[in-house]
Amino acid sequence: MNIRFFNARILSMVEGQDIFDGELWVEDSKITYVGAAMPEEEREKLNKKFTRNIDCDGNLLMPGFKDAHTHSGMTLMRSYADGLPLQEWLETKIFPLEAKMTDEDCGLLTKLAVLEYLTSGITAIMDMYLSPDAIAKACEETGMRVVQVSGINKFGPSLEEFEDRYNRLNGKHPLSSYMMGFHAEYTCDRELLEKLSELAHKYSAPMFTHNSETVREVEECKERYGMTPTVFLDSLGLFDFGGGGYHCCHMSDEDIEIFKKRSLTAVTNPGSNTKLASGIAPVKRFLDEGINVAIGTDGPSSNNCLDMFREMFLVTGLAKLREKDASVVNGMEVLKMATVNGAKAMGLDDCDVLAEGKEADLIMIDLKQPNMQPINDIPNNLVYSGSKQNVKLTMIHGSILYEDGKFNVGMTPGEIYKAAEAIQKRLF
Amino acid sequence: MNIRFFNARILSMVEGQDIFDGELWVEDSKITYVGAAMPEEEREKLNKKFTRNIDCDGNLLMPGFKDAHTHSGMTLMRSYADGLPLQEWLETKIFPLEAKMTDEDCGLLTKLAVLEYLTSGITAIMDMYLSPDAIAKACEETGMRVVQVSGINKFGPSLEEFEDRYNRLNGKHPLSSYMMGFHAEYTCDRELLEKLSELAHKYSAPMFTHNSETVREVEECKERYGMTPTVFLDSLGLFDFGGGGYHCCHMSDEDIEIFKKRSLTAVTNPGSNTKLASGIAPVKRFLDEGINVAIGTDGPSSNNCLDMFREMFLVTGLAKLREKDASVVNGMEVLKMATVNGAKAMGLDDCDVLAEGKEADLIMIDLKQPNMQPINDIPNNLVYSGSKQNVKLTMIHGSILYEDGKFNVGMTPGEIYKAAEAIQKRLF
Repeated sequence: MNIRFFNARILSMVEGQDIFDGELWVEDSKITYVGAAMPEEEREKLNKKFTRNIDCDGNLLMPGFKDAHTHSGMTLMRSYADGLPLQEWLETKIFPLEAKMTDEDCGLLTKLAVLEYLTSGITAIMDMYLSPDAIAKACEETGMRVVQVSGINKFGPSLEEFEDRYNRLNGKHPLSSYMMGFHAEYTCDRELLEKLSELAHKYSAPMFTHNSETVREVEECKERYGMTPTVFLDSLGLFDFGGGGYHCCHMSDEDIEIFKKRSLTAVTNPGSNTKLASGIAPVKRFLDEGINVAIGTDGPSSNNCLDMFREMFLVTGLAKLREKDASVVNGMEVLKMATVNGAKAMGLDDCDVLAEGKEADLIMIDLKQPNMQPINDIPNNLVYSGSKQNVKLTMIHGSILYEDGKFNVGMTPGEIYKAAEAIQKRLF
Repeated sequence: MNIRFFNARILSMVEGQDIFDGELWVEDSKITYVGAAMPEEEREKLNKKFTRNIDCDGNLLMPGFKDAHTHSGMTLMRSYADGLPLQEWLETKIFPLEAKMTDEDCGLLTKLAVLEYLTSGITAIMDMYLSPDAIAKACEETGMRVVQVSGINKFGPSLEEFEDRYNRLNGKHPLSSYMMGFHAEYTCDRELLEKLSELAHKYSAPMFTHNSETVREVEECKERYGMTPTVFLDSLGLFDFGGGGYHCCHMSDEDIEIFKKRSLTAVTNPGSNTKLASGIAPVKRFLDEGINVAIGTDGPSSNNCLDMFREMFLVTGLAKLREKDASVVNGMEVLKMATVNGAKAMGLDDCDVLAEGKEADLIMIDLKQPNMQPINDIPNNLVYSGSKQNVKLTMIHGSILYEDGKFNVGMTPGEIYKAAEAIQKRLF
């Protein structure tokens, strides 16, 4: 299906390019034109060339958001066992329940998360969870773009399965890829981490993991190895081909030097870090040091929503509180984290900006809602006052999956809710 | 117009009452029934009795949110001059622009804010801003419930005008009232404050003000008077008939004792305090001490949105970060702040809960959006994952002002946006 968006404001996120009025063409999965409006005399020809000609009525087109850290299948545990600190919450509530989830459950619960991602203009996720084959299938069926990251730890899977997944789940489907990773230092032993490092070297692969989320995690690692998690993991060669850390709240100067030296991405998760009282990441410092910062919602059981607008406000707001300075981390810097920087971390070089030849992963923002009026500064409006309510349309890989509150993901929301409720009844 | 809501889940916010399935009747401006569903044989008779019978389809009815601190007319300055600390932002950017605003401008810009309040399920505001007569008129014309608070300071208005407004703007319209207040200690001199205290005593009136928002404000007051703002203002008798403070981020033990002794409300404004890097209010301490805590969005230039869902998440989230404890300030406590406690502070004793004889100020929450599924815990869903997207209907004083994205406020959104844009063009 070929679609022409006209009468749009366009925030391309191309470096140095201001917002402009114009139009954008999508042919199959790609953007084939972004630029000034076509002259009046071309209109009729264009109307025939495209399957749909969408009048944006002055609303904004921009790249979709990249949610760089998720555990989608945890929708099951939304608003379940709220109010516990991270370790207790994981060990007493989450792990026992996860042990009972089937692959099929995980796929369905991922579809529930996809619905919510679409309502928030999220067009790609970096997902670490159980049942990678079922997650890939759920994303392919709904049309969601997914970059999975292994969450291997001392409880499973085997290294053979890890390597097999890495080969099996890459290059098979345009929406789906798989990167190397492990759950966290504190859920892996040294031997496992050394073997993972060997595999990173074998495939020249970047490596991602939960890193320095809580004070307790950092202190216990120092007790075990005499080093912070970042220093310890780097000493094993795990970051020799790049990658990054999720959370990164409690970082030493040496940790930050390693992030620079290895070109690692710090994925900040402010909603989750707030709700679990984990702390505030040093985002201003990361920016000052030139470290790539991306944004993730984390899972819906520790947030509890999957909303890039909430995260964007928190990224800048918490940085301001931490530094006691209202001027740090401005709106445009946050928008870059939520789009271009996330794409970079996830290896989605074709999905970062609106430009000819790029993948058509884009959203339309409704500027006619009261929270966007009057228009003084669109990037700041998006970051400081934007909400899910402003997402009019979400397109991934050239397909419109969400438009004016309606979904196009294979199943209806009602079918997905009913199936999720059945899982809930069976497992709780 | 008499309206019957059936097939609803009901969160009445009546102390000790759990969520139940049932129906609710509105006749004129009042709730005339809240309880179990009527028997099948009554249905036909009921269908005739009511102008509209609304099938809630299992969605949630609850009291509307009370936004206990706003400056609605500041919609003009949304996303204008972001990134400045409070005092500099006020003095160099906001005050000069406000000096140019007419009464008519203020009324129109208030209407723009009303649109946004309705999208977030806010059914009453406690507004401190310029042009009280124009604000009252704008709220009456749109159908918004407003409790205005005087923002008198050393630049105006006169005490005579202050007293006149107090008498003129109370008891005239069922949607509109006016309470005593002043802008802040730092914008009033001692003589003015002493005279305001006399008026509070003359009318036995509660008194509201910005209080201890920033460290600088507290330190400068201590330099001037050797006391914190709370202690100084109380020493003048300003709180002898109650009232409260907006923000209350930096509070001493003595300040907290005064809040308890005078039964003052602490109105917390976490969005604004975050964006302006003002600090985090000690909300857990307030609750432990039995102080009434309400929630305000503050104005759209320091937030920059008017969204009770954002504020509710921040109230609990920031308390968790401040106390380094994920268990503090639970979802139901926050919902109480956003409804019952706000009504108490604002003198809206008839608008606090859903019960027979109360004002019909209520909202319907769409539980069929993905961010509410599966349903493990509705109060926690509202606070931790709720968003404007979930507001299906907002009713004030028995009138539906917002339903499924459509407004019923006298003017169309387009007319209001156009008028706001004209003001923007004239004043910037």
